[in-house]
Amino acid sequence: MKAARYYDRGDIRIENIPEPTVAAGEVGIAVAYCGICGSDLHEYVDGPIFVPPAGHPHPISGESAPITLGHEMSGVVYELGEGVTDLKVGDHVVVEPYILYDDVDTSENNPSYHLSKDMNFIGLGGRGGGLSEKLSVKRRWVHPVGDIPLDEAALIEPLSVGYHAYQRSGAKAGDLALIGGAGPIGLLTAAVLKAEGLTVVISELSPLRRQKALDSGVADYVVNPAEQDVVDEVAKLTDGKGADVAFECTSVQVVLDTLFDAVKPQGVIVVVSIWGHPASLDVQKLVLKEVDLRGTIAYVNSHPATIKLVQEGKVDLKPFITAKIGLDHLVDEGFDTLIHHNETAVKILVDPKL
Amino acid sequence: MKAARYYDRGDIRIENIPEPTVAAGEVGIAVAYCGICGSDLHEYVDGPIFVPPAGHPHPISGESAPITLGHEMSGVVYELGEGVTDLKVGDHVVVEPYILYDDVDTSENNPSYHLSKDMNFIGLGGRGGGLSEKLSVKRRWVHPVGDIPLDEAALIEPLSVGYHAYQRSGAKAGDLALIGGAGPIGLLTAAVLKAEGLTVVISELSPLRRQKALDSGVADYVVNPAEQDVVDEVAKLTDGKGADVAFECTSVQVVLDTLFDAVKPQGVIVVVSIWGHPASLDVQKLVLKEVDLRGTIAYVNSHPATIKLVQEGKVDLKPFITAKIGLDHLVDEGFDTLIHHNETAVKILVDPKL
Repeated sequence: MKAARYYDRGDIRIENIPEPTVAAGEVGIAVAYCGICGSDLHEYVDGPIFVPPAGHPHPISGESAPITLGHEMSGVVYELGEGVTDLKVGDHVVVEPYILYDDVDTSENNPSYHLSKDMNFIGLGGRGGGLSEKLSVKRRWVHPVGDIPLDEAALIEPLSVGYHAYQRSGAKAGDLALIGGAGPIGLLTAAVLKAEGLTVVISELSPLRRQKALDSGVADYVVNPAEQDVVDEVAKLTDGKGADVAFECTSVQVVLDTLFDAVKPQGVIVVVSIWGHPASLDVQKLVLKEVDLRGTIAYVNSHPATIKLVQEGKVDLKPFITAKIGLDHLVDEGFDTLIHHNETAVKILVDPKL
Repeated sequence: MKAARYYDRGDIRIENIPEPTVAAGEVGIAVAYCGICGSDLHEYVDGPIFVPPAGHPHPISGESAPITLGHEMSGVVYELGEGVTDLKVGDHVVVEPYILYDDVDTSENNPSYHLSKDMNFIGLGGRGGGLSEKLSVKRRWVHPVGDIPLDEAALIEPLSVGYHAYQRSGAKAGDLALIGGAGPIGLLTAAVLKAEGLTVVISELSPLRRQKALDSGVADYVVNPAEQDVVDEVAKLTDGKGADVAFECTSVQVVLDTLFDAVKPQGVIVVVSIWGHPASLDVQKLVLKEVDLRGTIAYVNSHPATIKLVQEGKVDLKPFITAKIGLDHLVDEGFDTLIHHNETAVKILVDPKL
């Protein structure tokens, strides 16, 4: 079967590799669509980061580069491993792509299995990936999606990132949220917040991204920080109080600073973005305003609730699918577009059958 | 009456000023003891900070330098203003020293009255101070202390800072807390945490301060970061998990970095100290460990619970009173000792009758 294999920085190859075997307790999934994630771009441009380099096998998967990429996948069950009885061939599913030690408690009673030692992701740390025709995944990480269209279902994974960020924030219906940045994660976080009854304000430099935030219905207000005072605009919308919660989705210092000024006293700022460099923290603001700065990464027990939001029609994922390409064009039509024309592209889906 | 008046940086004078008048709704308090706070030292060395400089009256108090200092006071009620009927002359009291606009909701339903606009402190922003013989305070800010000895009662105010930091942390009995720094606020925060059933580890360079933390009973373990690996020591005490909560009480970068490494995933770090400079924030640690970094300042509705801890004998404040001096020696025996010999001094109390 065809697969996109990460060898090293700047070196991704489309190759023919053997199909996976479906072991006991696993589910064989024929990939329908797989999104390209910002993490994939980082691996391509700055990596290897999550990918274990050749000669340095990951302690859990035992694999190292070349690694099959892709962790935002939807697909159809084509085979059930021994002992898997609660799914059937033909079911539409998505994957919560974790690689964890076998002794980690992955039940819903554990709110931090995603933070366990040596955690990595299917499609980055080994165990196949969505940028191929098929993969086999432990039953625990397979979530049925019912009649959600399979292209939209490929966005459940990044939407779950937004859902977990929402959970980390402690935000509630009626709150006002300020989001810094309308890239894919900013938009999908906005989609969750809107679905949960918040008022959403997005600050974003790009006019095309601001328009997408409005057209998709996930933002109530957009602000152009090059021309408007974000703090003033938020103050106007909150009777001078400030935003209840804010989400940092850019990894840009001035955005973080703005969020500190725009949240209310005892407000919460959630950092969703991955920073490649340290930030400067104005401790006086943190202390004298009693701000609560929280990190969030990926998802934990978030997929069922996220899938429900889409099934109930509270989140419409269609506006965020901006292209569908074949696996052979992953780099030229996928990665290069996202790196060089990322104002218009939100999610590019790869269809391995094309 | 005698009072310590702050004129400017390095210029504090002991002067004779008129006694306060006790207006309607106020309580006249004859000061028994008043502690010297780190904030007072900052005003003396680096100020004016909270003190409104001469010619720039504070918008609420209308006062500017010279200002009577002192906000950690205990005393005896000597006069009741019109309409105050629930206290009597002779009652022992402490002051929650807020200066707030009259329209701020200061009921227990408001968890953030201390963060309201232009907030300042009695003894820094005007309205008299504890480093004098008498002051008159609105009934709302007067808390009876029953039979708590008046010298110990003067430590209720900084203990309330520790109590509010504990509240901000969300810590609970059975948790392990790591405190960076055993200065007065580190020690008093430890006292609250110990009283609330936590296991307390303090990291502190000074051997004398470490000894005080052990002798006073507020620390279960002390660590010398110059010779021991704080992260390893905490890991040993927590089966490798990390501290549940941590308190930054030093305003030193390496301490903040250590707390990030020593807390568990999804652990909470509360910044209690006042930083005069920005911190460097390793955002990757915040995000990939889902750390929760929270600011805390002063207290809000914290005094009643703090007083109860002392009344019930759960906190013993005696070990933290290291000297008693007269008002005339505020600078030479008080400020200079704290600035130059602060390893042995914890709280120096000023007795205006000496």
